[in-house]
Amino acid sequence: MTSPMPARIGDPLSRVQTPALIVDLDALDANIGAMAAHVRGTGQVLRPHAKTHKSVEVARRQLAAGAVGLCCQKVSEGEALLPSGVRDLLISNHVVGAGKAQRLCALAREVRTTTLCSDTRHARVLSDAARSAGVQLEILIEIDAGDARMGLPDGDTTGLLQIAQMVQDAPGLRLRGLQVYNGPFQHIRSHEERTSAAVLAANRAKAASQLLQDAGLSCEVISGGGTGSFTADVEAGVLTELQPGSYVFMDADYGRNLDASGAQVSAFRQSLFVQTTVIRTASAGVVYLDAGVKSLNLDSGMPLVKGRPDLGFTKASDEQGRIEASPAGPAPELGEVLMLVPSHCDPTVNQHDWIVAVRNEEVEAVWPVDGRGCLL
Amino acid sequence: MTSPMPARIGDPLSRVQTPALIVDLDALDANIGAMAAHVRGTGQVLRPHAKTHKSVEVARRQLAAGAVGLCCQKVSEGEALLPSGVRDLLISNHVVGAGKAQRLCALAREVRTTTLCSDTRHARVLSDAARSAGVQLEILIEIDAGDARMGLPDGDTTGLLQIAQMVQDAPGLRLRGLQVYNGPFQHIRSHEERTSAAVLAANRAKAASQLLQDAGLSCEVISGGGTGSFTADVEAGVLTELQPGSYVFMDADYGRNLDASGAQVSAFRQSLFVQTTVIRTASAGVVYLDAGVKSLNLDSGMPLVKGRPDLGFTKASDEQGRIEASPAGPAPELGEVLMLVPSHCDPTVNQHDWIVAVRNEEVEAVWPVDGRGCLL
Repeated sequence: MTSPMPARIGDPLSRVQTPALIVDLDALDANIGAMAAHVRGTGQVLRPHAKTHKSVEVARRQLAAGAVGLCCQKVSEGEALLPSGVRDLLISNHVVGAGKAQRLCALAREVRTTTLCSDTRHARVLSDAARSAGVQLEILIEIDAGDARMGLPDGDTTGLLQIAQMVQDAPGLRLRGLQVYNGPFQHIRSHEERTSAAVLAANRAKAASQLLQDAGLSCEVISGGGTGSFTADVEAGVLTELQPGSYVFMDADYGRNLDASGAQVSAFRQSLFVQTTVIRTASAGVVYLDAGVKSLNLDSGMPLVKGRPDLGFTKASDEQGRIEASPAGPAPELGEVLMLVPSHCDPTVNQHDWIVAVRNEEVEAVWPVDGRGCLL
Repeated sequence: MTSPMPARIGDPLSRVQTPALIVDLDALDANIGAMAAHVRGTGQVLRPHAKTHKSVEVARRQLAAGAVGLCCQKVSEGEALLPSGVRDLLISNHVVGAGKAQRLCALAREVRTTTLCSDTRHARVLSDAARSAGVQLEILIEIDAGDARMGLPDGDTTGLLQIAQMVQDAPGLRLRGLQVYNGPFQHIRSHEERTSAAVLAANRAKAASQLLQDAGLSCEVISGGGTGSFTADVEAGVLTELQPGSYVFMDADYGRNLDASGAQVSAFRQSLFVQTTVIRTASAGVVYLDAGVKSLNLDSGMPLVKGRPDLGFTKASDEQGRIEASPAGPAPELGEVLMLVPSHCDPTVNQHDWIVAVRNEEVEAVWPVDGRGCLL
């Protein structure tokens, strides 16, 4: 039931069948190295988020560069990435339901497994599952990092102490610390505001950690941070481990984040593309591509066309995309191949079964997206 | 690399692991029967679009109900659906590039294969590929059905005659007729305006067909129409075959189409759902689900919650969805299972590896989404 591979090793990039997900290996390697170097020697550790790539091969490179383990968003994603050799997984999500808890415990038999909890009823289900499976689940209590989404509300000290005490005491569970992650903050454009948001999250985590420690409760780990906030996360020095995901690939949306000087943040290179072909020339300056919403994801806007600022991707149906040339530039020809920069890397990768790994315009490898569609 | 199945045969619906794609078999069977009955005896034939379901099992049911063949949007989708026993495929798209043309010709060795063309350069590539593969490709010339998208512009009689003549004369190609399909028209809410749009497309097709016949060119097939326009398509009596796809599943967007009396069109039942679990109760009236943009598709708006008009799906991240209860109703509990009605069926199905087929609240089968991720 796996779809056909779009390329073979040794193919020139121009002969890859489209639409196809392309990763530039030089850029990927540079990104993995740059993040590892930034965190090295800070006393913090790197636990990259694998929800971005869902790929054993990318995970291997992150682990080889010193990552302490991986984050996954789903238990089955973690299962799919075991061949990377990962020994320490954080399922950075709330794994709810008896069936899911069993699945989580089966994973905990293979590798050290940590997950999130912020509800005593949930803790009870996890404890029951762990006890009857004879495993230990490690727990981070999630606190609200400022987006009022998944964590315990700021200031709910009673709730925090109650759930932490319960986890610490519950058979089969081990209290390990705190999770403090804010997705929307990662995409704040202004450096100053993004930094303030990261500092807010860090301050909340610091206060919560102090509260736990004062009550004699464990807090050896504070996990969070991301590709948008990583410099501020390191500077604030509160997180013990960082969870960035998108830095390996980058996307058009992250490309709009600005540094302190107001320029585009340049720590990482765009390594991810969707290669596509012009399948129809329409009216003057308008052409259609063979890539639409089944090979891209448009929830963070439209993709960009690499090296062609004169071309706008203006619309998509399921299998087709519309390109409009600005009057000055010539429209691409029938059969011409374009490289799109996805607007949002994670859900775009999840549309594809294969990553075509390219170096110097030649296919070096074709990797499965091992965790694609792993929703459980 | 296939993700784990969310259910086993015999499981009660409530025990299916989430998020999971659910199909209500009674509704599915009723929809397949209703469309077949509507077209039967009209002199037109039904060629359902398989891009909606990408499923061998659904295709088998459509063929058993009298479908003459299937439409696919990609060559690899057609390959994936061959086990359905289909003998007649229309790749209702422009298959561009030498590699893709070879793939198309390999398919034509297996089954009768028709595809679209509206460009003489494209026709040349197809002809070359067919000749060197020793197969015959059947061709529909695509004409603009009113949305100025993929087809030859209305009134371009010179262009139409030129490409049709070339296809008729080209070795390896056989001119079969016309394709006239307008996607956006299917979603016009008003019955009257939707009917007018279908009549416009039919009139254009009729004129083009006459032009071909007057020039001694073949036009035995006029293919088009969809789930939004099917009654008008049948009434207009110009199309020789209908290509509806979404009618098997339906979605929240099609649910907003109105009939002549201004009521919701009721020819088909909602058979497709995404089952999801509440993984976190947040502030009053707000909960989070385990389904986000990696298990849904939001390009046609937000999903609805089945049987719970008091609950709004207001926001989604990659793996989570936000539900807000109206003040009157109680919010769902942690662990509670909800059924979402997807806003757009085709790209939602394409996120999933498995269809959980349910009858009377019990899992009757788990079908692979055979053509999932088939982008080539």
